[in-house]
Amino acid sequence: MTDEASFSAHRRTVVKGVAASAVLLSSGVAWSNSRETDREALRQAVDAGFEDSVRRIQDWIRLPTVAAEKLNVDQGADHMIRLAGEAGFQNLRKVPTGGIPAVFGTLDAGAKRTVGIYFMYDVKQFNPSEWTSPPLEAQIFDHPLGRAIRGRGAVNQKGPEGAFLAALHAFRKSGKRLPVNLVLLAEGEEEIGSPNFINVFKDAQVLAAMKRADGVIIPSAAQSQTGAVTINLGAKGIIECELVASGKRWGRGPAQDVHSSLKAQVDSPVWHLVNALTTLVRDEGNTPAIDGWFEHVRPLTARERQLIAESARNRNEDEVKQQLGVSRWIDDLPWGASLERLASQPTVNIEGLVAGYTGPGGKTILPGRGVAKLDLRLVPNMTVADALPKLRAHLAKRGFGDIEVNMTGGYDPTETAEDSSVIKAQQAVFERSKIPYTLFPRIAGSWPGFVFTGDPLRKPAGQFGLGYGSGAHAPDEFFIIESKNSKVAGLREAAMAFVDFLYEMATQR
Amino acid sequence: MTDEASFSAHRRTVVKGVAASAVLLSSGVAWSNSRETDREALRQAVDAGFEDSVRRIQDWIRLPTVAAEKLNVDQGADHMIRLAGEAGFQNLRKVPTGGIPAVFGTLDAGAKRTVGIYFMYDVKQFNPSEWTSPPLEAQIFDHPLGRAIRGRGAVNQKGPEGAFLAALHAFRKSGKRLPVNLVLLAEGEEEIGSPNFINVFKDAQVLAAMKRADGVIIPSAAQSQTGAVTINLGAKGIIECELVASGKRWGRGPAQDVHSSLKAQVDSPVWHLVNALTTLVRDEGNTPAIDGWFEHVRPLTARERQLIAESARNRNEDEVKQQLGVSRWIDDLPWGASLERLASQPTVNIEGLVAGYTGPGGKTILPGRGVAKLDLRLVPNMTVADALPKLRAHLAKRGFGDIEVNMTGGYDPTETAEDSSVIKAQQAVFERSKIPYTLFPRIAGSWPGFVFTGDPLRKPAGQFGLGYGSGAHAPDEFFIIESKNSKVAGLREAAMAFVDFLYEMATQR
Repeated sequence: MTDEASFSAHRRTVVKGVAASAVLLSSGVAWSNSRETDREALRQAVDAGFEDSVRRIQDWIRLPTVAAEKLNVDQGADHMIRLAGEAGFQNLRKVPTGGIPAVFGTLDAGAKRTVGIYFMYDVKQFNPSEWTSPPLEAQIFDHPLGRAIRGRGAVNQKGPEGAFLAALHAFRKSGKRLPVNLVLLAEGEEEIGSPNFINVFKDAQVLAAMKRADGVIIPSAAQSQTGAVTINLGAKGIIECELVASGKRWGRGPAQDVHSSLKAQVDSPVWHLVNALTTLVRDEGNTPAIDGWFEHVRPLTARERQLIAESARNRNEDEVKQQLGVSRWIDDLPWGASLERLASQPTVNIEGLVAGYTGPGGKTILPGRGVAKLDLRLVPNMTVADALPKLRAHLAKRGFGDIEVNMTGGYDPTETAEDSSVIKAQQAVFERSKIPYTLFPRIAGSWPGFVFTGDPLRKPAGQFGLGYGSGAHAPDEFFIIESKNSKVAGLREAAMAFVDFLYEMATQR
Repeated sequence: MTDEASFSAHRRTVVKGVAASAVLLSSGVAWSNSRETDREALRQAVDAGFEDSVRRIQDWIRLPTVAAEKLNVDQGADHMIRLAGEAGFQNLRKVPTGGIPAVFGTLDAGAKRTVGIYFMYDVKQFNPSEWTSPPLEAQIFDHPLGRAIRGRGAVNQKGPEGAFLAALHAFRKSGKRLPVNLVLLAEGEEEIGSPNFINVFKDAQVLAAMKRADGVIIPSAAQSQTGAVTINLGAKGIIECELVASGKRWGRGPAQDVHSSLKAQVDSPVWHLVNALTTLVRDEGNTPAIDGWFEHVRPLTARERQLIAESARNRNEDEVKQQLGVSRWIDDLPWGASLERLASQPTVNIEGLVAGYTGPGGKTILPGRGVAKLDLRLVPNMTVADALPKLRAHLAKRGFGDIEVNMTGGYDPTETAEDSSVIKAQQAVFERSKIPYTLFPRIAGSWPGFVFTGDPLRKPAGQFGLGYGSGAHAPDEFFIIESKNSKVAGLREAAMAFVDFLYEMATQR
């Protein structure tokens, strides 16, 4: 997904000296005998279906839906419907959202409980020239961590979603009954910030079906290279927007690029933009300075501080610094304080600047237009609806009202209670499987969980899944299908983790 | 050339209702009978050579030397030597400068006086997809102002230089003796700011030859669409540079792009860059605020103010505003005051900004690096040698010493006295030919005239030439070869203006 996966893209340390085994496959303990029997049948079915599951992920990678480029919109949705149908979903159809359609389906197992499953069928843009193998070839290769698929979408999110589908195929093939009913909602615009996805709930049937769910998960490959998992109890919200300054709209400066010598006579829309930017922050860019920005910011609770302190103890600061290429945190904060900041503070980040001449060397122009691409992370209880007008008002008040604020995507923060079913079920799976895990208040990144945790559903929602991959939004994205590390799941173990999760969801309350 | 030509690129108004004629060809008045006879022979030779002259420009356009891309470096210099040799130059050779070689040659006519000729044989980069016809095809087309050549370098500077070569061919073909000796210096790096050209004078033979010159001109197409000419008595200097902020060099922020959610924990090199930029200016970017920047700025003289006032009266403010797409000058200054500012003030202009993600939409990264491309115009008596260290010291003093200042090109301001031979000869040509002209203290743009007006030569130097073209540094660059407007020179009339200029240089002192 937009953020969590690409965050883990920075975890590139190579684990050395791993030994191949399959501890995870046989990890169920203290379950009833009948469930153990079922589980063994499912495990065999997952095993037997392994090659099909790999091929299913590869074929999917070969059909990239890229929302920003409107690439394979219909084909991607049709393929999603096909994949879901083969895995046992029924009542499948596209749901109009005003953008790229969502895909809806249900799987009625006659069970007491229902689980919502969120898929994304789109992927991020890619530049083939930066890749070791073509990003749509879905090549199998030997990674230090094991056999892996390399391709756009491998880990973000087709690999983990493919593992979930593998679990469903195992239920079908083994003839075992699913312990929960499922409702599938798949979107095709996750990578542009899910601008329309919330509109699926205008469809009464979709809304009614999702209301029956006890909670929602998006399949993910959440393990680090050491096998550890962080359960995030939420995520920041985000406003992605472009600030566009232009002479045309400003009424000062040139309507198009003119010769740079005219700077002595003519105002510069790019200086106008730079001046506007500096009003948005203080502390060298580290603290938002937008009027009223902190009005609804909820401070960390005692429990949240406790979770962060635990996480600080469990994670290796030097390793993280090395992975990020960072030698100091903001204000030279110590590790724990920097993690508190990471979890709790809103940000104004410049993703990109583009104005005038951007090629090699120089070109003597006074640009008629400049663009700053920003992402503003929102923490509870900030909302997009409240924050965006504040940004506009702040600019207008300071003489920058002519600067366009074009929001390209974004959504509210999301939070899920620690004692909710989806969190407790995850913990149960990890404990049974001896997967080390920590709870963290929220990822500093964002995912559109608000669609489920906010109005109108207000359901617990989170990311769940074992496995490892990296390179989301980057070249050489990959997903491990056969792990050399007994503590890190491959595709089979990831599928079994979904089996276990569904069993846990059937009993949690 | 870098600036003057592209400045005129903004003069795009289409002149209506022009009538074809050739007033300019027969414009000599009050000259001696023998010179008149020679002139008539030269005129016929120019006429007879017209098709060859057009083809010569076209062939030259088809061999673009692009310094920034190291394209056709040797081929371009060899072609320059061939062109000069065919026009009568001798002792032709490449002169090493440390960069792309210059070309040197002499034409000894046994005359009393000597004129230095500066050519540039390189052209600006181009993007064929933006052009109406391929930029290297040198297509002949019908422009509202007359028949024209469209191609990269057409007006900047191969067309005007081709007109000068046409004049020399006319002397050869008609058997008339050149009234002055010539020294040619051609450079291949004008479009990257002539970073090495001054080194030609380390060659003793080049220096000695140029020292004999009374003055230096670069051929240009200096007419406006109405036929009027501005004689500029100088040009601003320029520092083109990149300011590069990076986490690696700063020691804060990430060494490479990382996930944007980390902004809450990690410093941003792009915010660092934006903060540094804002210290360089005040008044919304309109006034340099670099420490000591105005120390050597010489105020306008009374004569310079007078010339600017005259120019303000002669030029149509509304037309200029419309051509530039500008509705107001800086500080809402009136026209005359804005022209004074244009001529007299140093500037800090942002040519380009490039950081992080620059494609469509957004990408949630915290860039590890940001670049601002600046051009800083220098007025007399500022120098690059004085100004560049001031810029660096200013940044260092404010905590931005880690930001790299990479100068990619530039040179000192240039000034030529109103009573010098090259200026007086130009005026004489214009007066005889009834070309309306005005004197202006200096163009706000830049050309490397300092090479000739500064040490070690200290010669008068200026741009001279009739004709019209536009689109320098832009798509669809063109040069008029057959004008429909009797007051605007085509290729024949431009060649004859050079003939007349050389005669005037023979008598001026």
